[in-house]
Amino acid sequence: MKKIKMGMIGGGFGAFIGDAHRRASRICNDFELVGGVFDADFEKSLEFAKNEGIAPARCYESVGKLIEGELALPAGERIEVVSIVTPNALHFPFAKSILNAGFHVVCEKPMTMTVEEAEELEKIVGETKLTFALTHTYTGYPMIRQMKDLIAKGTLGTIQRIDAQYYQGWINSIIHGTDSRIKGVWRLDPKHAGASSCMGDIGVHAFNLIEYTTGLEVDEILSDLSPVKEGIQLDLDGTVLLHFGKNLKGVIRASQVCGGEENNLTIAVYGSKASLKWSQENPNYLTMLSDSETTRIFKPAHGYNDQFAEMSHTMPSGHPEGIYEALANIYKGTARSIRGEKFIPGEFPTVHDGVRGMKFIHSVVSSNKMGNVWIKL
Amino acid sequence: MKKIKMGMIGGGFGAFIGDAHRRASRICNDFELVGGVFDADFEKSLEFAKNEGIAPARCYESVGKLIEGELALPAGERIEVVSIVTPNALHFPFAKSILNAGFHVVCEKPMTMTVEEAEELEKIVGETKLTFALTHTYTGYPMIRQMKDLIAKGTLGTIQRIDAQYYQGWINSIIHGTDSRIKGVWRLDPKHAGASSCMGDIGVHAFNLIEYTTGLEVDEILSDLSPVKEGIQLDLDGTVLLHFGKNLKGVIRASQVCGGEENNLTIAVYGSKASLKWSQENPNYLTMLSDSETTRIFKPAHGYNDQFAEMSHTMPSGHPEGIYEALANIYKGTARSIRGEKFIPGEFPTVHDGVRGMKFIHSVVSSNKMGNVWIKL
Amino acid sequence: MKKIKMGMIGGGFGAFIGDAHRRASRICNDFELVGGVFDADFEKSLEFAKNEGIAPARCYESVGKLIEGELALPAGERIEVVSIVTPNALHFPFAKSILNAGFHVVCEKPMTMTVEEAEELEKIVGETKLTFALTHTYTGYPMIRQMKDLIAKGTLGTIQRIDAQYYQGWINSIIHGTDSRIKGVWRLDPKHAGASSCMGDIGVHAFNLIEYTTGLEVDEILSDLSPVKEGIQLDLDGTVLLHFGKNLKGVIRASQVCGGEENNLTIAVYGSKASLKWSQENPNYLTMLSDSETTRIFKPAHGYNDQFAEMSHTMPSGHPEGIYEALANIYKGTARSIRGEKFIPGEFPTVHDGVRGMKFIHSVVSSNKMGNVWIKL
Amino acid sequence: MKKIKMGMIGGGFGAFIGDAHRRASRICNDFELVGGVFDADFEKSLEFAKNEGIAPARCYESVGKLIEGELALPAGERIEVVSIVTPNALHFPFAKSILNAGFHVVCEKPMTMTVEEAEELEKIVGETKLTFALTHTYTGYPMIRQMKDLIAKGTLGTIQRIDAQYYQGWINSIIHGTDSRIKGVWRLDPKHAGASSCMGDIGVHAFNLIEYTTGLEVDEILSDLSPVKEGIQLDLDGTVLLHFGKNLKGVIRASQVCGGEENNLTIAVYGSKASLKWSQENPNYLTMLSDSETTRIFKPAHGYNDQFAEMSHTMPSGHPEGIYEALANIYKGTARSIRGEKFIPGEFPTVHDGVRGMKFIHSVVSSNKMGNVWIKL
Repeated sequence: MKKIKMGMIGGGFGAFIGDAHRRASRICNDFELVGGVFDADFEKSLEFAKNEGIAPARCYESVGKLIEGELALPAGERIEVVSIVTPNALHFPFAKSILNAGFHVVCEKPMTMTVEEAEELEKIVGETKLTFALTHTYTGYPMIRQMKDLIAKGTLGTIQRIDAQYYQGWINSIIHGTDSRIKGVWRLDPKHAGASSCMGDIGVHAFNLIEYTTGLEVDEILSDLSPVKEGIQLDLDGTVLLHFGKNLKGVIRASQVCGGEENNLTIAVYGSKASLKWSQENPNYLTMLSDSETTRIFKPAHGYNDQFAEMSHTMPSGHPEGIYEALANIYKGTARSIRGEKFIPGEFPTVHDGVRGMKFIHSVVSSNKMGNVWIKL
Repeated sequence: MKKIKMGMIGGGFGAFIGDAHRRASRICNDFELVGGVFDADFEKSLEFAKNEGIAPARCYESVGKLIEGELALPAGERIEVVSIVTPNALHFPFAKSILNAGFHVVCEKPMTMTVEEAEELEKIVGETKLTFALTHTYTGYPMIRQMKDLIAKGTLGTIQRIDAQYYQGWINSIIHGTDSRIKGVWRLDPKHAGASSCMGDIGVHAFNLIEYTTGLEVDEILSDLSPVKEGIQLDLDGTVLLHFGKNLKGVIRASQVCGGEENNLTIAVYGSKASLKWSQENPNYLTMLSDSETTRIFKPAHGYNDQFAEMSHTMPSGHPEGIYEALANIYKGTARSIRGEKFIPGEFPTVHDGVRGMKFIHSVVSSNKMGNVWIKL
Repeated sequence: MKKIKMGMIGGGFGAFIGDAHRRASRICNDFELVGGVFDADFEKSLEFAKNEGIAPARCYESVGKLIEGELALPAGERIEVVSIVTPNALHFPFAKSILNAGFHVVCEKPMTMTVEEAEELEKIVGETKLTFALTHTYTGYPMIRQMKDLIAKGTLGTIQRIDAQYYQGWINSIIHGTDSRIKGVWRLDPKHAGASSCMGDIGVHAFNLIEYTTGLEVDEILSDLSPVKEGIQLDLDGTVLLHFGKNLKGVIRASQVCGGEENNLTIAVYGSKASLKWSQENPNYLTMLSDSETTRIFKPAHGYNDQFAEMSHTMPSGHPEGIYEALANIYKGTARSIRGEKFIPGEFPTVHDGVRGMKFIHSVVSSNKMGNVWIKL
Repeated sequence: MKKIKMGMIGGGFGAFIGDAHRRASRICNDFELVGGVFDADFEKSLEFAKNEGIAPARCYESVGKLIEGELALPAGERIEVVSIVTPNALHFPFAKSILNAGFHVVCEKPMTMTVEEAEELEKIVGETKLTFALTHTYTGYPMIRQMKDLIAKGTLGTIQRIDAQYYQGWINSIIHGTDSRIKGVWRLDPKHAGASSCMGDIGVHAFNLIEYTTGLEVDEILSDLSPVKEGIQLDLDGTVLLHFGKNLKGVIRASQVCGGEENNLTIAVYGSKASLKWSQENPNYLTMLSDSETTRIFKPAHGYNDQFAEMSHTMPSGHPEGIYEALANIYKGTARSIRGEKFIPGEFPTVHDGVRGMKFIHSVVSSNKMGNVWIKL
């Protein structure tokens, strides 16, 4: 099948997330990276392009020149989709101009810096009917998709409690280092990181997984955040109470100072009939609990799973796939959408998920500032 | 060694918790059950005494008669300690009169119904110098004791986050059953259960483990509780935000409607140098996480543990002990205290732990009623 | 209920296994320790009796005097059952004379030193109809009993493979210590340990669990044993191939030199329809695997278990019981048998299990000596 | 960096293993698939090439024509390495002619059908100095490489026991299906599968992991194999005793009839100082046991690992990578070798590993046929 021509903004030498996107696009095998703006420094960008085997002519000095250059090419040669993997503050302006120029977009999270920007993007996507995929990568795991399907089918009965956690510890090495090191860390600087560190970077993933797997929308939140240490201006840790409507409550716990935790994202959804638990660090196990039956463990590549989970894992059972494959699943769904093929809703997170995420982040920051009060999302 | 003569109030036929106390007292082998008031129905109490091989003369009609009868016996034959395993509302009046009569007390939790009662008991214990053990059973596990010691030695550095969970699902079968069944369940009736169901019954265990293992006291709380279903008058589910002082925050999550969860009490204490995690359902594993070193798992019966953990496990390593042995460890410490032997602080939870617990329960209920506000403990 | 009067041979100060038996007998609460020969040194034995609150008159100088003394007492006061927890070589002569005097017996394993002795005991038990319980403790775990029941009901279909493991590492500290330490270790001395160290002490437990859970008998074995180190005269490590009849094979792996392994006894039984796996260090989990269905985990205290498993666990689900409770379950079944009550076959291992075990140990040693050949059991 | 031009033999539509090789080569990003013989049916092969975006001219009718065609191209355009992913019996003739034509080879296992063929390939590779990589995929996991390094550094002391397992259950659905299905299964037919089913397909992986991680060579083996069911001509299950030299013994257990087991490959190496355990289904955890210290768990992306493990994982810690990444690591090492770059021994399994594997398979079959006797490897 003909590969979709892909451009990339950001992701040059040393960029971890850009590399992940390229790997994922190669794994799903529906894309061909043909151009981009890989680095703010054009020389470095060119060198990177050369290293990747990309024609120098399609390594552009700016997003504007990329749009101009590509639109000048015949439709069959032209970039069709652009992956945006730049620092956070640039996601919005680049996504906006790229969409407006008629290209599909894959965008890293957080989608924007403000709710208003997010809503503006949602409007553009709605009007242009272009494909916009937000890489909440964890939605690409087969067992998360199986969880979504089991809940949609009513397997859990009435949902009674929701609990998600995202614990990491890596920021410890920064905040307990020297002052000079702290200055250099953009994630601790509100100008670059935005309104929130912990909730904006990871809490929002937990929020997204909750809405993704349950199909429910959080109604209001109350947050309690902590800078953990004197002199830190952003939240590195926090708890968010969730209300979903009458009698359904939940909680998100997130922290970047849980020393020794690596990437411990978990979600548990408890229902009147059964419950489901999943953990990102062991993604190929989905546990179903029940008051009256044995605990059941779902794994990928089994006939008992729904189609959505099964198409999200390519190896036979017992051959673990990981996070690159999860991201590749999102790229695969994006490709189906770009090609106008039939796809399952949920194959890639949408611009609407991005709007929800920005509302979550800003509400959480506001609730904390206002003295831990309830805020509608 | 001569056994301590023990009496018991409550715990007759069909009483699960009374049976657990008797087993624990037999395991530690320092006690001899010689009398009691086993049932409100004297005939049943007598039959139970007979079945247990207890002299009918020491099966009393009331707590008052037990005190009278035992005080009439020569000191060497007399009951020395009384285990109170009655319904909750009776803990306080019985403990008060028994202490005032000069007997040591082992008391099931919750210690009392109100904070005032708890403080009154604390005063009496302080004045009489009698031994008063509150059976927060989970403090008897060897790896919880190892956790307490590791934290006391400063192994974790500065504590940065605390997260405890107590999830059960058993109440589902009641609230989703018929109306007639619900009426019969005293735990859902405020008159018998007290101000709280979930937080009073299990949340308080999580609270106790936090204060027990860290040696810290919670400063203020904000709670969000849920009755889960129309017509339920008490909390069956909730989240409690914790403040410990400047920059240390935490959370307690507790629920009785997490379908399929059995007795899933966990605690995680995260520090600047290392972190510790423990789970009640797998009590013989204590996990230490670190940003820079391999994850370490502590198990009982190893030279690397402190003395407190080691004396709390009698089998060689790899031979799992369980919850009866945890309760037996509390009885063992109580015996040491009664005999005036040297013991390690923490061998049994004290009347002060009971006061803290009552403050926790009542603050949590108040915070929720007042609209999720902060309340000092 | 009236307690059964119990005597004990061995198990004085410092005897770990005697203490375990006493605890178990107290947990099940059907026994009362009233006399015994606790130590070869009569003074120490007397001191131990005093410490345990046993009448000095019933602390005897020898097994012969115990028999004589107890038979002289009125039937209602007399010891009814004797627990034998002496060094291995004494099990047979003591069990024989005690049975012949008309007392029931609880005997530690290995039951005897030779197959002939084992068969002699089996004959005596058959003739006297006395209760004889061999404490293969692991058969007392609720999930092992559930495993036995599931297999008996045919849940697994045709059994296709059996794999049991018993790995420990404790002997490392001895064999890699100094010469003087090695001399002192009776377990490395054939005169005291018998024909085998590893297979006699632990391999036989794995063998017993296989026959216990499956109801099958091993037909022939081929073994490969290792002393691991120069100068060691006994097996510290080995593998045993098992044939059960046409087309069913299995394996037992056992070792005392698996550094860091604690008491890692596992059993897996694989069938044409489903499979079951269990591990002693996490005894409250029984895993059922299936090619076509989700993995299922059985835990104690659930309605989905059979009666045998359910009566073997007294706490609610999620409250872990351990190895003392497993041994107590065996004592409980023994009590039922002594009292002439109805009991479930399998509540305690019998003298026949002891015969099978001795055949296993001696066949394994012979196979290895003869150059790893097949030997019929 | 310029990509290495790769050809592929086999791996057309529906070929699971060919797809895995292509994904792996795309993940490591050092290869470009430019031609091949993808299917015995040339039309299907052409269609596959078209689908993959490969020039029709380089889709050849036979391996002979591929060699001829590619040698006719200028060196810079020519295929440099050929991946052989055909049915087993074709590995040897194709590898031989491809090597003799001067191309590097990546070859699926089993490398050949006989030991003689394997040794012939080893000779050719030795003489041509070409790169020959055998895809024992599991050697590509970072924690297997960490295990290899820890053992090489002497962390375990003297190795005392080795135990590897490879249990699967998928063949159950075939052997318990209808006769007609069995006929169609080439794996049960000695003509196509070779001398062995279970040991040839999976037992040999366990054998390879043992020699790979320990650096030891198995000296002699004794096997006990089972067809499990009437009428099956090959082994579907078996146990292999291993001797490594004086006093070091081990065991390999492998089965295709362990119902519900997916791909349960495990290895445990026990030493006098410490021990290491690893399981393929949870590949990012390496457990170190010790008699005197806490259990330690190694995970990827940590400073405590050696360079070999660290270069084999690209994501930050806690982001699980899987089996495709393991295979990509082998392709990465192969690329380094082809380019003449420095690489770490062990980055890809060699033709010598293939010779060892064939010796293992044939010895195991012979030992079983000859009545379970010892055979030197």
